[in-house]
Amino acid sequence: MNICIVGLGLLGGSTALGLKAKDSSYRIIGVDNDREHAAQALVGEIADKIMSLEEAVQHADVVILATPVNVIIKQLPEVLDMVGRNVVVTDLGSTKEQICATVRDHPKRGQYVAAHPIAGTERSGPGAAFPELLLGKQMILCERDRSDIEALEIVENLFKLKLNMRVSYMEAAAHDRHIAYVSHLSHISSFALSTTVLDKEKDELSIFEMAGSGFSSTVRLAKSSAQMWVPIFSQNTKNISSALGSYIKNLQRFKDIIDAQDEEGASAEITRANDIIRVLSGIEK
Amino acid sequence: MNICIVGLGLLGGSTALGLKAKDSSYRIIGVDNDREHAAQALVGEIADKIMSLEEAVQHADVVILATPVNVIIKQLPEVLDMVGRNVVVTDLGSTKEQICATVRDHPKRGQYVAAHPIAGTERSGPGAAFPELLLGKQMILCERDRSDIEALEIVENLFKLKLNMRVSYMEAAAHDRHIAYVSHLSHISSFALSTTVLDKEKDELSIFEMAGSGFSSTVRLAKSSAQMWVPIFSQNTKNISSALGSYIKNLQRFKDIIDAQDEEGASAEITRANDIIRVLSGIEK
Repeated sequence: MNICIVGLGLLGGSTALGLKAKDSSYRIIGVDNDREHAAQALVGEIADKIMSLEEAVQHADVVILATPVNVIIKQLPEVLDMVGRNVVVTDLGSTKEQICATVRDHPKRGQYVAAHPIAGTERSGPGAAFPELLLGKQMILCERDRSDIEALEIVENLFKLKLNMRVSYMEAAAHDRHIAYVSHLSHISSFALSTTVLDKEKDELSIFEMAGSGFSSTVRLAKSSAQMWVPIFSQNTKNISSALGSYIKNLQRFKDIIDAQDEEGASAEITRANDIIRVLSGIEK
Repeated sequence: MNICIVGLGLLGGSTALGLKAKDSSYRIIGVDNDREHAAQALVGEIADKIMSLEEAVQHADVVILATPVNVIIKQLPEVLDMVGRNVVVTDLGSTKEQICATVRDHPKRGQYVAAHPIAGTERSGPGAAFPELLLGKQMILCERDRSDIEALEIVENLFKLKLNMRVSYMEAAAHDRHIAYVSHLSHISSFALSTTVLDKEKDELSIFEMAGSGFSSTVRLAKSSAQMWVPIFSQNTKNISSALGSYIKNLQRFKDIIDAQDEEGASAEITRANDIIRVLSGIEK
Protein backbone atom coordinates (compact mmCIF):
# COMPACT_ATOMS: atom_id res chain seq x y z
CA MET A 1 0.00 0.00 0.00
CA ASN A 2 1.30 3.46 -0.91
CA ILE A 3 0.72 6.06 1.76
CA CYS A 4 1.33 9.69 0.95
CA ILE A 5 2.13 11.78 4.01
CA VAL A 6 1.98 15.53 3.49
CA GLY A 7 3.99 17.36 6.14
CA LEU A 8 6.89 15.36 7.58
CA GLY A 9 7.00 16.93 11.03
CA LEU A 10 6.47 15.38 14.44
CA LEU A 11 3.01 13.98 13.69
CA GLY A 12 3.42 13.05 10.01
CA GLY A 13 6.87 11.62 10.65
CA SER A 14 5.75 9.61 13.66
CA THR A 15 2.78 8.23 11.72
CA ALA A 16 5.12 7.08 8.95
CA LEU A 17 7.58 5.50 11.38
CA GLY A 18 4.80 3.79 13.38
CA LEU A 19 3.16 2.30 10.28
CA LYS A 20 6.45 1.13 8.80
CA ALA A 21 7.49 -0.48 12.07
CA LYS A 22 4.25 -2.48 12.07
CA ASP A 23 4.09 -3.42 8.41
CA SER A 24 7.17 -3.22 6.21
CA SER A 25 5.08 -3.49 3.05
CA TYR A 26 3.87 0.11 3.44
CA ARG A 27 5.57 2.47 1.06
CA ILE A 28 5.66 6.04 2.34
CA ILE A 29 5.68 8.86 -0.20
CA GLY A 30 6.65 12.04 1.59
CA VAL A 31 5.65 15.58 0.64
CA ASP A 32 7.14 18.62 2.31
CA ASN A 33 7.69 22.16 1.04
CA ASP A 34 10.61 22.50 3.42
CA ARG A 35 13.49 20.94 1.47
CA GLU A 36 15.57 20.42 4.57
CA HIS A 37 12.74 18.55 6.31
CA ALA A 38 12.22 16.45 3.17
CA ALA A 39 15.91 15.54 3.06
CA GLN A 40 15.92 14.74 6.79
CA ALA A 41 12.87 12.50 6.31
CA LEU A 42 14.66 10.48 3.63
CA VAL A 43 17.79 10.08 5.74
CA GLY A 44 15.71 9.16 8.82
CA GLU A 45 13.79 6.58 6.74
CA ILE A 46 10.52 8.34 7.48
CA ALA A 47 9.78 8.49 3.74
CA ASP A 48 10.84 6.04 1.04
CA LYS A 49 10.51 8.70 -1.63
CA ILE A 50 9.92 12.45 -1.79
CA MET A 51 7.58 13.84 -4.45
CA SER A 52 5.62 16.99 -5.16
CA LEU A 53 2.03 16.92 -3.88
CA GLU A 54 0.64 16.64 -7.43
CA GLU A 55 2.83 13.68 -8.27
CA ALA A 56 2.47 11.97 -4.90
CA VAL A 57 -1.34 11.83 -4.94
CA GLN A 58 -1.23 10.03 -8.29
CA HIS A 59 0.68 7.15 -6.68
CA ALA A 60 -1.12 7.03 -3.33
CA ASP A 61 -3.77 4.71 -1.95
CA VAL A 62 -4.11 6.86 1.14
CA VAL A 63 -3.22 10.55 1.57
CA ILE A 64 -2.60 11.79 5.12
CA LEU A 65 -2.45 15.57 5.59
CA ALA A 66 -0.20 16.34 8.55
CA THR A 67 0.41 20.04 7.86
CA PRO A 68 -0.65 23.03 10.04
CA VAL A 69 -4.45 23.51 10.01
CA ASN A 70 -4.35 26.60 7.76
CA VAL A 71 -2.47 24.54 5.18
CA ILE A 72 -4.87 21.59 5.55
CA ILE A 73 -7.81 23.88 4.74
CA LYS A 74 -6.11 24.84 1.49
CA GLN A 75 -4.75 21.41 0.59
CA LEU A 76 -7.76 19.24 1.41
CA PRO A 77 -10.09 20.39 -1.42
CA GLU A 78 -7.15 20.47 -3.85
CA VAL A 79 -6.19 16.91 -2.96
CA LEU A 80 -9.80 15.70 -3.24
CA ASP A 81 -9.95 17.36 -6.69
CA MET A 82 -6.84 15.48 -7.78
CA VAL A 83 -7.29 11.97 -6.38
CA GLY A 84 -8.91 9.02 -8.13
CA ARG A 85 -12.12 7.37 -6.94
CA ASN A 86 -10.42 4.71 -4.79
CA VAL A 87 -8.07 6.95 -2.87
CA VAL A 88 -8.81 7.78 0.77
CA VAL A 89 -7.83 11.15 2.25
CA THR A 90 -7.50 11.95 5.94
CA ASP A 91 -5.95 14.73 8.04
CA LEU A 92 -4.45 14.97 11.51
CA GLY A 93 -5.40 18.59 12.30
CA SER A 94 -6.17 19.81 15.81
CA THR A 95 -9.33 21.63 14.66
CA LYS A 96 -12.16 19.97 12.79
CA GLU A 97 -15.13 22.29 12.26
CA GLN A 98 -13.71 24.65 9.62
CA ILE A 99 -11.78 21.89 7.89
CA CYS A 100 -14.91 19.75 7.55
CA ALA A 101 -16.96 22.76 6.40
CA THR A 102 -14.48 23.45 3.59
CA VAL A 103 -15.27 20.14 1.86
CA ARG A 104 -18.86 19.60 3.02
CA ASP A 105 -20.19 19.87 -0.54
CA HIS A 106 -17.20 18.41 -2.33
CA PRO A 107 -18.27 15.64 -4.76
CA LYS A 108 -15.62 13.35 -3.25
CA ARG A 109 -16.48 14.20 0.40
CA GLY A 110 -17.11 10.49 1.08
CA GLN A 111 -13.44 9.69 0.40
CA TYR A 112 -12.36 11.96 3.25
CA VAL A 113 -12.18 10.97 6.93
CA ALA A 114 -11.70 13.83 9.41
CA ALA A 115 -9.28 12.73 12.13
CA HIS A 116 -7.44 14.11 15.13
CA PRO A 117 -4.98 12.00 17.10
CA ILE A 118 -4.61 13.07 20.75
CA ALA A 119 -0.85 12.80 20.69
CA GLY A 120 2.05 15.15 20.41
CA THR A 121 4.99 16.62 22.19
CA GLU A 122 6.20 20.20 22.41
CA ARG A 123 8.87 19.41 19.79
CA SER A 124 8.48 19.73 16.03
CA GLY A 125 10.08 18.72 12.75
CA PRO A 126 11.10 15.29 11.38
CA GLY A 127 13.92 15.09 13.93
CA ALA A 128 11.32 14.97 16.71
CA ALA A 129 9.37 12.06 15.14
CA PHE A 130 9.42 8.61 16.77
CA PRO A 131 7.47 5.42 15.94
CA GLU A 132 5.72 5.08 19.32
CA LEU A 133 4.11 8.55 19.42
CA LEU A 134 0.64 7.37 18.34
CA LEU A 135 0.65 3.87 19.83
CA GLY A 136 -2.26 3.31 22.22
CA LYS A 137 -3.39 6.94 22.02
CA GLN A 138 -6.89 8.27 21.35
CA MET A 139 -7.97 8.96 17.75
CA ILE A 140 -11.05 11.13 17.27
CA LEU A 141 -12.93 10.75 13.98
CA CYS A 142 -15.47 13.46 13.14
CA GLU A 143 -18.49 13.60 10.84
CA ARG A 144 -18.41 9.82 10.47
CA ASP A 145 -21.72 9.85 8.57
CA ARG A 146 -20.23 11.93 5.77
CA SER A 147 -17.44 9.43 5.06
CA ASP A 148 -17.94 6.33 2.89
CA ILE A 149 -17.88 3.08 4.83
CA GLU A 150 -14.93 1.82 2.76
CA ALA A 151 -12.93 4.97 3.50
CA LEU A 152 -13.67 4.69 7.22
CA GLU A 153 -12.60 1.06 7.21
CA ILE A 154 -9.26 1.83 5.59
CA VAL A 155 -8.52 4.67 8.01
CA GLU A 156 -9.61 2.64 11.04
CA ASN A 157 -7.50 -0.25 9.87
CA LEU A 158 -4.44 1.99 9.79
CA PHE A 159 -4.94 3.70 13.13
CA LYS A 160 -6.78 1.06 15.17
CA LEU A 161 -5.24 -2.18 13.93
CA LYS A 162 -1.79 -1.02 12.91
CA LEU A 163 -1.12 1.71 15.46
CA ASN A 164 -3.27 0.25 18.23
CA MET A 165 -5.13 3.54 18.72
CA ARG A 166 -8.46 3.83 20.53
CA VAL A 167 -10.90 5.28 17.99
CA SER A 168 -13.89 7.35 19.03
CA TYR A 169 -16.43 9.42 17.10
CA MET A 170 -17.59 12.96 17.68
CA GLU A 171 -19.31 15.80 15.93
CA ALA A 172 -16.84 18.37 14.60
CA ALA A 173 -18.38 21.21 16.63
CA ALA A 174 -18.21 19.20 19.87
CA HIS A 175 -14.64 18.23 19.07
CA ASP A 176 -13.56 21.85 18.70
CA ARG A 177 -15.43 22.89 21.87
CA HIS A 178 -13.82 20.15 23.97
CA ILE A 179 -10.33 20.44 22.57
CA ALA A 180 -10.31 24.18 23.33
CA TYR A 181 -10.51 23.26 27.03
CA VAL A 182 -8.27 20.20 27.24
CA SER A 183 -5.54 21.16 24.78
CA HIS A 184 -5.65 24.66 23.34
CA LEU A 185 -6.16 26.29 26.76
CA SER A 186 -3.23 24.33 28.24
CA HIS A 187 -0.98 25.72 25.54
CA ILE A 188 -2.03 29.30 26.18
CA SER A 189 -1.64 28.87 29.94
CA SER A 190 1.95 27.74 29.26
CA PHE A 191 2.73 30.48 26.73
CA ALA A 192 1.56 33.16 29.19
CA LEU A 193 3.34 31.55 32.14
CA SER A 194 6.53 31.59 30.11
CA THR A 195 6.28 35.26 29.14
CA THR A 196 5.32 36.23 32.71
CA VAL A 197 8.44 34.69 34.21
CA LEU A 198 10.68 35.77 31.32
CA ASP A 199 9.49 39.37 31.83
CA LYS A 200 10.37 39.11 35.51
CA GLU A 201 13.81 37.76 34.62
CA LYS A 202 14.72 41.24 33.34
CA ASP A 203 14.75 42.48 36.97
CA GLU A 204 15.70 39.24 38.67
CA LEU A 205 18.48 37.67 36.67
CA SER A 206 18.83 34.49 38.68
CA ILE A 207 15.10 33.73 38.89
CA PHE A 208 15.35 30.47 36.99
CA GLU A 209 17.97 29.05 39.37
CA MET A 210 15.06 28.09 41.60
CA ALA A 211 12.88 26.57 38.89
CA GLY A 212 12.26 22.87 39.37
CA SER A 213 10.19 20.07 37.92
CA GLY A 214 6.85 21.69 38.81
CA PHE A 215 7.66 24.79 36.82
CA SER A 216 9.03 22.84 33.87
CA SER A 217 5.91 20.66 33.79
CA THR A 218 3.53 23.62 33.62
CA VAL A 219 5.61 25.58 31.11
CA ARG A 220 6.78 22.75 28.83
CA LEU A 221 4.12 23.41 26.17
CA ALA A 222 5.46 26.97 25.73
CA LYS A 223 8.12 25.42 23.50
CA SER A 224 5.41 24.75 20.88
CA SER A 225 5.75 26.44 17.51
CA ALA A 226 3.89 29.52 16.28
CA GLN A 227 3.63 27.98 12.81
CA MET A 228 1.40 25.22 14.16
CA TRP A 229 -0.49 27.13 16.84
CA VAL A 230 -1.41 30.49 15.30
CA PRO A 231 -3.68 28.83 12.68
CA ILE A 232 -5.32 26.72 15.41
CA PHE A 233 -6.18 29.89 17.33
CA SER A 234 -7.63 31.41 14.16
CA GLN A 235 -9.78 28.39 13.40
CA ASN A 236 -11.06 27.85 16.94
CA THR A 237 -11.31 31.47 18.09
CA LYS A 238 -14.76 31.36 19.66
CA ASN A 239 -14.21 28.26 21.76
CA ILE A 240 -10.70 29.24 22.84
CA SER A 241 -11.88 32.73 23.78
CA SER A 242 -14.61 31.26 25.93
CA ALA A 243 -12.26 28.78 27.64
CA LEU A 244 -9.66 31.49 28.20
CA GLY A 245 -12.32 33.86 29.57
CA SER A 246 -13.35 31.25 32.18
CA TYR A 247 -9.73 30.57 33.04
CA ILE A 248 -8.99 34.26 33.61
CA LYS A 249 -12.13 34.55 35.78
CA ASN A 250 -11.02 31.60 37.91
CA LEU A 251 -7.53 33.04 38.28
CA GLN A 252 -8.95 36.43 39.25
CA ARG A 253 -11.15 34.76 41.90
CA PHE A 254 -8.08 32.92 43.19
CA LYS A 255 -6.17 36.22 43.32
CA ASP A 256 -9.00 37.91 45.24
CA ILE A 257 -8.98 35.04 47.74
CA ILE A 258 -5.22 35.28 48.20
CA ASP A 259 -5.31 39.08 48.50
CA ALA A 260 -7.99 38.75 51.18
CA GLN A 261 -5.90 36.06 52.95
CA ASP A 262 -9.09 34.01 52.91
CA GLU A 263 -7.67 30.64 53.98
CA GLU A 264 -11.01 28.85 53.94
CA GLY A 265 -11.69 30.11 50.43
CA ALA A 266 -8.24 29.03 49.23
CA SER A 267 -8.70 25.62 50.78
CA ALA A 268 -12.08 25.19 49.07
CA GLU A 269 -10.60 26.16 45.67
CA ILE A 270 -7.70 23.74 46.01
CA THR A 271 -9.94 20.92 47.18
CA ARG A 272 -12.18 21.53 44.17
CA ALA A 273 -9.13 21.49 41.88
CA ASN A 274 -7.89 18.24 43.48
CA ASP A 275 -10.80 16.45 41.81
CA ILE A 276 -8.54 16.37 38.74
CA ILE A 277 -6.91 13.32 40.39
CA ARG A 278 -9.94 11.30 39.25
CA VAL A 279 -9.40 12.45 35.67
CA LEU A 280 -5.62 12.12 35.53
CA SER A 281 -5.63 8.58 36.89
CA GLY A 282 -7.50 7.72 33.68
CA ILE A 283 -5.09 9.58 31.37
CA GLU A 284 -1.88 8.46 33.02
CA LYS A 285 -2.77 4.80 33.43
CA MET B 1 24.18 10.83 64.36
CA ASN B 2 20.57 11.18 65.49
CA ILE B 3 18.40 13.14 63.09
CA CYS B 4 14.95 14.18 64.16
CA ILE B 5 12.57 14.71 61.24
CA VAL B 6 9.37 16.51 62.10
CA GLY B 7 6.67 15.80 59.48
CA LEU B 8 7.04 12.45 57.73
CA GLY B 9 5.42 13.39 54.42
CA LEU B 10 6.87 13.46 50.92
CA LEU B 11 9.75 15.80 51.75
CA GLY B 12 10.55 14.68 55.31
CA GLY B 13 10.19 11.03 54.36
CA SER B 14 12.34 11.37 51.25
CA THR B 15 15.04 13.19 53.24
CA ALA B 16 15.10 10.35 55.77
CA LEU B 17 15.24 7.66 53.06
CA GLY B 18 17.92 9.52 51.09
CA LEU B 19 20.16 10.00 54.16
CA LYS B 20 19.74 6.41 55.34
CA ALA B 21 20.53 5.07 51.88
CA LYS B 22 23.79 7.00 51.90
CA ASP B 23 24.87 6.39 55.46
CA SER B 24 23.39 3.57 57.50
CA SER B 25 24.76 5.02 60.74
CA TYR B 26 22.12 7.78 60.72
CA ARG B 27 19.37 7.13 63.20
CA ILE B 28 16.10 8.80 62.22
CA ILE B 29 13.73 9.85 64.98
CA GLY B 30 10.38 10.62 63.42
CA VAL B 31 7.77 13.05 64.72
CA ASP B 32 4.29 13.27 63.22
CA ASN B 33 0.98 14.29 64.77
CA ASP B 34 -0.81 12.06 62.29
CA ARG B 35 -0.66 8.62 63.93
CA GLU B 36 -1.33 6.84 60.67
CA HIS B 37 1.56 8.63 58.94
CA ALA B 38 3.82 7.85 61.91
CA ALA B 39 2.91 4.15 61.73
CA GLN B 40 3.43 4.11 57.95
CA ALA B 41 6.84 5.75 58.41
CA LEU B 42 7.93 3.00 60.80
CA VAL B 43 6.73 0.23 58.49
CA GLY B 44 8.35 1.92 55.48
CA GLU B 45 11.63 2.26 57.43
CA ILE B 46 11.56 6.03 57.03
CA ALA B 47 11.94 6.40 60.80
CA ASP B 48 13.75 4.11 63.23
CA LYS B 49 11.69 5.38 66.13
CA ILE B 50 8.66 7.62 66.62
CA MET B 51 8.66 10.08 69.50
CA SER B 52 6.82 13.20 70.61
CA LEU B 53 8.47 16.45 69.53
CA GLU B 54 9.54 17.23 73.11
CA GLU B 55 11.17 13.85 73.58
CA ALA B 56 12.70 13.71 70.08
CA VAL B 57 14.59 17.01 70.32
CA GLN B 58 16.30 15.78 73.51
CA HIS B 59 17.87 12.90 71.56
CA ALA B 60 18.63 14.75 68.32
CA ASP B 61 21.87 16.15 66.91
CA VAL B 62 19.96 17.72 64.03
CA VAL B 63 16.27 18.66 63.87
CA ILE B 64 14.70 19.00 60.40
CA LEU B 65 11.28 20.63 60.25
CA ALA B 66 9.38 19.27 57.24
CA THR B 67 5.89 20.35 58.21
CA PRO B 68 3.62 22.86 56.35
CA VAL B 69 4.96 26.44 56.63
CA ASN B 70 2.29 27.58 59.13
CA VAL B 71 3.36 24.74 61.43
CA ILE B 72 7.07 25.53 60.94
CA ILE B 73 6.46 29.11 62.09
CA LYS B 74 4.98 27.77 65.31
CA GLN B 75 7.43 24.89 65.84
CA LEU B 76 10.69 26.65 65.00
CA PRO B 77 10.90 28.99 68.05
CA GLU B 78 9.58 26.21 70.32
CA VAL B 79 12.24 23.81 69.07
CA LEU B 80 15.00 26.42 69.47
CA ASP B 81 13.78 27.00 73.04
CA MET B 82 14.05 23.29 73.78
CA VAL B 83 17.29 22.20 72.13
CA GLY B 84 20.75 22.11 73.70
CA ARG B 85 23.62 24.30 72.56
CA ASN B 86 25.07 21.77 70.11
CA VAL B 87 21.92 20.90 68.26
CA VAL B 88 21.34 22.26 64.75
CA VAL B 89 17.85 23.07 63.50
CA THR B 90 16.80 23.47 59.87
CA ASP B 91 13.52 23.57 57.94
CA LEU B 92 12.43 22.66 54.43
CA GLY B 93 9.64 25.22 53.99
CA SER B 94 8.74 26.78 50.64
CA THR B 95 8.68 30.31 52.12
CA LYS B 96 11.53 31.88 54.01
CA GLU B 97 10.88 35.51 54.89
CA GLN B 98 8.25 35.12 57.65
CA ILE B 99 9.89 31.99 59.04
CA CYS B 100 13.26 33.76 59.35
CA ALA B 101 11.60 36.84 60.86
CA THR B 102 9.98 34.71 63.59
CA VAL B 103 13.35 33.73 65.06
CA ARG B 104 15.45 36.76 64.09
CA ASP B 105 16.02 37.75 67.72
CA HIS B 106 16.00 34.27 69.21
CA PRO B 107 19.07 33.75 71.45
CA LYS B 108 19.77 30.48 69.60
CA ARG B 109 19.24 31.95 66.11
CA GLY B 110 22.77 30.87 65.13
CA GLN B 111 21.83 27.20 65.54
CA TYR B 112 19.17 27.53 62.84
CA VAL B 113 19.79 27.24 59.08
CA ALA B 114 16.93 28.37 56.82
CA ALA B 115 16.64 25.96 53.88
CA HIS B 116 14.41 25.24 50.91
CA PRO B 117 15.06 22.26 48.64
CA ILE B 118 13.76 22.74 45.08
CA ALA B 119 12.24 19.29 44.90
CA GLY B 120 8.84 17.79 45.22
CA THR B 121 6.08 16.03 43.41
CA GLU B 122 2.33 16.62 43.45
CA ARG B 123 1.95 13.66 45.82
CA SER B 124 2.01 13.81 49.61
CA GLY B 125 2.35 11.64 52.71
CA PRO B 126 4.97 9.04 53.71
CA GLY B 127 3.71 6.68 50.99
CA ALA B 128 4.89 9.19 48.36
CA ALA B 129 8.43 9.42 49.79
CA PHE B 130 11.38 7.96 47.87
CA PRO B 131 15.13 8.13 48.53
CA GLU B 132 16.10 9.81 45.24
CA LEU B 133 13.76 12.85 45.53
CA LEU B 134 16.46 15.28 46.70
CA LEU B 135 19.49 13.81 44.92
CA GLY B 136 21.23 16.34 42.66
CA LYS B 137 18.53 18.99 43.23
CA GLN B 138 19.01 22.64 44.22
CA MET B 139 19.09 23.57 47.91
CA ILE B 140 18.61 27.24 48.74
CA LEU B 141 19.97 28.44 52.08
CA CYS B 142 18.80 31.85 53.29
CA GLU B 143 20.20 34.38 55.77
CA ARG B 144 23.51 32.55 55.81
CA ASP B 145 25.12 35.31 57.91
CA ARG B 146 22.73 34.69 60.77
CA SER B 147 23.69 31.02 61.12
CA ASP B 148 26.75 29.85 63.04
CA ILE B 149 29.51 28.48 60.85
CA GLU B 150 29.35 25.10 62.61
CA ALA B 151 25.60 24.86 62.02
CA LEU B 152 26.01 25.70 58.34
CA GLU B 153 28.73 23.09 58.00
CA ILE B 154 26.58 20.35 59.49
CA VAL B 155 23.60 21.22 57.27
CA GLU B 156 25.75 21.51 54.14
CA ASN B 157 27.38 18.21 54.94
CA LEU B 158 23.98 16.53 55.05
CA PHE B 159 22.55 18.05 51.89
CA LYS B 160 25.62 18.66 49.75
CA LEU B 161 27.84 15.70 50.62
CA LYS B 162 25.26 13.09 51.54
CA LEU B 163 22.41 13.98 49.18
CA ASN B 164 24.57 15.46 46.44
CA MET B 165 22.50 18.65 46.34
CA ARG B 166 23.72 21.90 44.75
CA VAL B 167 23.70 24.50 47.52
CA SER B 168 23.19 28.19 46.82
CA TYR B 169 22.64 31.20 49.05
CA MET B 170 20.02 33.89 48.84
CA GLU B 171 18.38 36.57 50.94
CA ALA B 172 15.02 35.45 52.33
CA ALA B 173 13.12 38.28 50.63
CA ALA B 174 14.67 37.51 47.23
CA HIS B 175 13.90 33.82 47.72
CA ASP B 176 10.23 34.50 48.35
CA ARG B 177 10.01 36.91 45.41
CA HIS B 178 11.58 34.42 42.98
CA ILE B 179 9.79 31.35 44.20
CA ALA B 180 6.43 33.11 43.75
CA TYR B 181 7.14 33.18 40.01
CA VAL B 182 8.80 29.82 39.42
CA SER B 183 6.82 27.64 41.79
CA HIS B 184 3.85 29.21 43.53
CA LEU B 185 2.46 30.70 40.29
CA SER B 186 2.75 27.35 38.49
CA HIS B 187 0.63 25.76 41.18
CA ILE B 188 -2.08 28.40 40.92
CA SER B 189 -2.10 28.18 37.11
CA SER B 190 -2.71 24.43 37.49
CA PHE B 191 -5.36 24.77 40.20
CA ALA B 192 -7.31 27.25 38.06
CA LEU B 193 -6.88 25.17 34.90
CA SER B 194 -8.28 22.21 36.74
CA THR B 195 -11.36 24.02 38.05
CA THR B 196 -11.95 25.64 34.63
CA VAL B 197 -12.14 22.30 32.85
CA LEU B 198 -13.97 20.56 35.69
CA ASP B 199 -16.63 23.31 35.57
CA LYS B 200 -17.01 22.73 31.84
CA GLU B 201 -17.36 18.98 32.43
CA LYS B 202 -20.78 19.67 33.97
CA ASP B 203 -22.10 20.50 30.47
CA GLU B 204 -19.75 18.33 28.45
CA LEU B 205 -19.54 14.97 30.16
CA SER B 206 -16.99 13.39 27.86
CA ILE B 207 -14.62 16.36 27.78
CA PHE B 208 -11.74 14.47 29.37
CA GLU B 209 -11.81 11.73 26.74
CA MET B 210 -9.74 14.06 24.61
CA ALA B 211 -7.25 15.06 27.26
CA GLY B 212 -3.71 13.95 26.48
CA SER B 213 -0.19 14.36 27.80
CA GLY B 214 -0.13 18.14 27.23
CA PHE B 215 -3.16 18.67 29.44
CA SER B 216 -1.91 16.32 32.12
CA SER B 217 1.47 18.08 32.19
CA THR B 218 -0.04 21.53 32.73
CA VAL B 219 -2.60 20.35 35.30
CA ARG B 220 -0.52 17.83 37.24
CA LEU B 221 0.27 20.25 40.09
CA ALA B 222 -3.46 20.65 40.75
CA LYS B 223 -3.22 17.39 42.70
CA SER B 224 -1.25 19.25 45.39
CA SER B 225 -2.70 19.42 48.88
CA ALA B 226 -4.52 22.38 50.46
CA GLN B 227 -2.85 21.59 53.78
CA MET B 228 0.55 22.42 52.32
CA TRP B 229 -0.41 25.23 49.92
CA VAL B 230 -2.88 27.44 51.81
CA PRO B 231 -0.22 28.44 54.38
CA ILE B 232 2.27 29.17 51.58
CA PHE B 233 -0.24 31.55 49.97
CA SER B 234 -0.76 33.24 53.34
CA GLN B 235 2.96 33.69 53.96
CA ASN B 236 3.84 34.89 50.46
CA THR B 237 0.71 36.87 49.63
CA LYS B 238 2.32 40.02 48.25
CA ASN B 239 4.70 38.28 45.87
CA ILE B 240 2.15 35.74 44.69
CA SER B 241 -0.43 38.45 44.12
CA SER B 242 2.03 40.38 41.99
CA ALA B 243 3.04 37.31 39.94
CA LEU B 244 -0.60 36.32 39.49
CA GLY B 245 -1.53 39.87 38.47
CA SER B 246 1.12 39.82 35.71
CA TYR B 247 0.01 36.37 34.59
CA ILE B 248 -3.64 37.47 34.31
CA LYS B 249 -2.54 40.56 32.34
CA ASN B 250 -0.56 38.41 29.91
CA LEU B 251 -3.48 36.01 29.48
CA GLN B 252 -5.86 38.90 28.88
CA ARG B 253 -3.52 40.31 26.21
CA PHE B 254 -3.38 36.87 24.60
CA LYS B 255 -7.18 36.71 24.68
CA ASP B 256 -7.47 40.15 23.05
CA ILE B 257 -5.08 39.05 20.30
CA ILE B 258 -7.07 35.85 19.69
CA ASP B 259 -10.40 37.70 19.73
CA ALA B 260 -9.02 40.15 17.15
CA GLN B 261 -7.70 37.23 15.06
CA ASP B 262 -4.39 39.10 15.10
CA GLU B 263 -2.14 36.40 13.66
CA GLU B 264 1.01 38.53 13.72
CA GLY B 265 0.38 39.41 17.35
CA ALA B 266 -0.19 35.76 18.27
CA SER B 267 2.95 34.74 16.46
CA ALA B 268 4.98 37.38 18.31
CA GLU B 269 3.63 36.23 21.69
CA ILE B 270 4.40 32.58 20.99
CA THR B 271 7.88 33.38 19.72
CA ARG B 272 8.54 35.37 22.88
CA ALA B 273 7.28 32.45 24.99
CA ASN B 274 9.50 30.01 23.05
CA ASP B 275 12.52 31.62 24.71
CA ILE B 276 11.70 29.32 27.64
CA ILE B 277 13.55 26.63 25.66
CA ARG B 278 16.81 28.28 26.77
CA VAL B 279 15.73 28.01 30.40
CA LEU B 280 14.28 24.51 30.31
CA SER B 281 17.35 23.04 28.67
CA GLY B 282 19.13 24.02 31.88
CA ILE B 283 16.51 22.52 34.21
CA GLU B 284 15.93 19.31 32.30
CA LYS B 285 19.56 18.51 31.59
